[in-house]
Amino acid sequence: MAQNQNIMIVGGDGFCGWPTALHLSQLGHNITIVDNLSRRRIDEELGADSLTPIASVEQRLAAWKETTGHVIGFAKIDVAHEYESLVELMSMLRPDTIIHFGEQRAAPYSMKSVSQKRYTVDNNISGTHNLLAASVELGLDPHFVHLGTMGVYGYDDDGLEIPEGYLPVYVPGDDKQIMKRDILYPTNPGSVYHLTKSMDQLLFQFYAKNDRLRITDLHQGIVWGTQTEETKLDERLINRFDYDGDYGTVLNRFLMQAVVGHPLTVHGTGGQTRAFIHIQDTVKCLALAVANPPARDGKVAILNQMTETHSVRSLAQLIAKTSGARVAYVDNPRNEAAENDLRVSNRTFLSLGLNPITLAEGLLDETQQVAAKYARRCKRDMIPCVSTWTDNQRPGLVCQAGRAA
Amino acid sequence: MAQNQNIMIVGGDGFCGWPTALHLSQLGHNITIVDNLSRRRIDEELGADSLTPIASVEQRLAAWKETTGHVIGFAKIDVAHEYESLVELMSMLRPDTIIHFGEQRAAPYSMKSVSQKRYTVDNNISGTHNLLAASVELGLDPHFVHLGTMGVYGYDDDGLEIPEGYLPVYVPGDDKQIMKRDILYPTNPGSVYHLTKSMDQLLFQFYAKNDRLRITDLHQGIVWGTQTEETKLDERLINRFDYDGDYGTVLNRFLMQAVVGHPLTVHGTGGQTRAFIHIQDTVKCLALAVANPPARDGKVAILNQMTETHSVRSLAQLIAKTSGARVAYVDNPRNEAAENDLRVSNRTFLSLGLNPITLAEGLLDETQQVAAKYARRCKRDMIPCVSTWTDNQRPGLVCQAGRAA
Repeated sequence: MAQNQNIMIVGGDGFCGWPTALHLSQLGHNITIVDNLSRRRIDEELGADSLTPIASVEQRLAAWKETTGHVIGFAKIDVAHEYESLVELMSMLRPDTIIHFGEQRAAPYSMKSVSQKRYTVDNNISGTHNLLAASVELGLDPHFVHLGTMGVYGYDDDGLEIPEGYLPVYVPGDDKQIMKRDILYPTNPGSVYHLTKSMDQLLFQFYAKNDRLRITDLHQGIVWGTQTEETKLDERLINRFDYDGDYGTVLNRFLMQAVVGHPLTVHGTGGQTRAFIHIQDTVKCLALAVANPPARDGKVAILNQMTETHSVRSLAQLIAKTSGARVAYVDNPRNEAAENDLRVSNRTFLSLGLNPITLAEGLLDETQQVAAKYARRCKRDMIPCVSTWTDNQRPGLVCQAGRAA
Repeated sequence: MAQNQNIMIVGGDGFCGWPTALHLSQLGHNITIVDNLSRRRIDEELGADSLTPIASVEQRLAAWKETTGHVIGFAKIDVAHEYESLVELMSMLRPDTIIHFGEQRAAPYSMKSVSQKRYTVDNNISGTHNLLAASVELGLDPHFVHLGTMGVYGYDDDGLEIPEGYLPVYVPGDDKQIMKRDILYPTNPGSVYHLTKSMDQLLFQFYAKNDRLRITDLHQGIVWGTQTEETKLDERLINRFDYDGDYGTVLNRFLMQAVVGHPLTVHGTGGQTRAFIHIQDTVKCLALAVANPPARDGKVAILNQMTETHSVRSLAQLIAKTSGARVAYVDNPRNEAAENDLRVSNRTFLSLGLNPITLAEGLLDETQQVAAKYARRCKRDMIPCVSTWTDNQRPGLVCQAGRAA
């Protein structure tokens, strides 16, 4: 393992990709960001914007060089549709590690209408497959690190701790003997976005088996927090804070609502339990994954990248308590279990030395340094979620409840 | 259930699609074929051709009308890339049943080079997803019947009978209690083609669960035979007989080799055991599936569509015995187990009344009526398989062995 690696970061302009690029650059790796800037385009499509002011890519990279002396490369390539350009770049870079963040990553956006469903499937599957196929075609031997999601498993409460990818099961054989099998934990995705990440798993399984690619798939929880040690260095390096109904995750939307004096809108009963991780821990996990590639044994390494679990209701209560905001229960636009328990194994990252930031200790900082600081930039109309999972759910009502409350 | 249904057959110009269209038309259904004629284009790309002479679509449909009085509709649409045309057609047709054969279906073709890998993923995934998404967007309630493959499971001999889609497994819970789960039988695809069919399964699982689409996924074995009762009615209706290294399945290639006096080339030891079904039984199974849609319970119906299993070696020996041909063992271009056992449950179709044609009784007819009859059209150079699964396998050697033997 080279200490200083050539690392290609696909989607390196996005919410997880950008702080990861900076952190790995700070650690001394040679970083090239490959991005088609689609996240910026989708902001325009939705009329939304990050609460924090995001500089252009050029400004970001210039600020990084000015602040740290490190140079990060950038190539504007759509990896899903510009295969020849991708191959040309990869044959030049010959990356030791490819980190793949380049997927449409919002569940509500993926369910908005047929056009976003089709975009999400096409973009995510073609992008992932092109990266794998190009690596094989060029005879490269990269460690391929993919940002997946805990959400592929769905949240039907089934009384099992979610293992790191593989579940040992017992099957009665034909002669009544009981046989043990290690299977990929069966997926049960709850949106088209989660569906594509489930399909990615099969792409990885095949390329690991057939071509002996070394692949690490990180099943990440919901990320909260905005800044990392590196993005704090200069305001031009600041990371995204999304609070809109499509890209804003639950915690950001609650924080934003609290700051602007809007009730915290809980979808359904709030009994949905989810896994969380701070963005600072995300970049640390990525660095740990990059430094610890799996063996070339034909098997994908699957790591759960999360540090704690909370129910939506308890998150709302926590933020209501500190901010004085009211909690409003509105219709749930998602097709999901009203209440669930969730237990997840994250042994690998803990054993590699991850020391997590807890919500209890990071929340105040997030409120003061980000949500309150940039509150003047908030577009209140963007907070409610108006995507619905099926036609017989009523966006009007959800929207109404969100706005009227 | 309407007795006479509006049925849209995607890929209805292909090897399984065409005889299915004729059979369902003969049964009185209103059939519309949707096809982009890609199978004909790939023949040109490969310099290959069906042994049997295939008429143009227009000639086929005219011959069918002339012979039986039945009219079959035809729309030349690429369902993977012409979404607007597809939606327009579907909103007009409002099909009771959609049968989806419209996928690139040759494993060796899918492994030929990066361009065929990328084509297969894009064509198969986008096509399947567009059909599902369009059904939901238009508020239709079709029974969606898909031709899948036994091959999604791989052929690692693991001592289990392959069930119809769902495998009951036992998992130790956290309190040491043993819990039973019904899971999708874990897939282990052996080529990019098989990979796409595994990914299709996840698309079906999601759309059945989220949108309550009724979906039947037919996991078919290797099809042998050429003619059905309907395709025999006129030579212009004749079905494809592929014997080339990409699209020819093992039995056809042996029959062709026997007829032209070429040794039967067995890849590896010939210990690979596979499931088989005659094309006449394929169309009967499709008619049974169309007549028996599953409940709208959020669960995909998965049926194994095969009637017997044979090892490649025993097939070669059978054909060698009847034809006097010699058997030649050559390198295996595939990345697969050398020997495996295979047991498959096909209870559903047997219980619905399927009375299978066996290889033992159908083989002579196939040899005389098809392979020998059209032998003059054979291009001998097309028989060897030159696709390899990974770069360190040597196509030259395989090809050499095939030709020199």
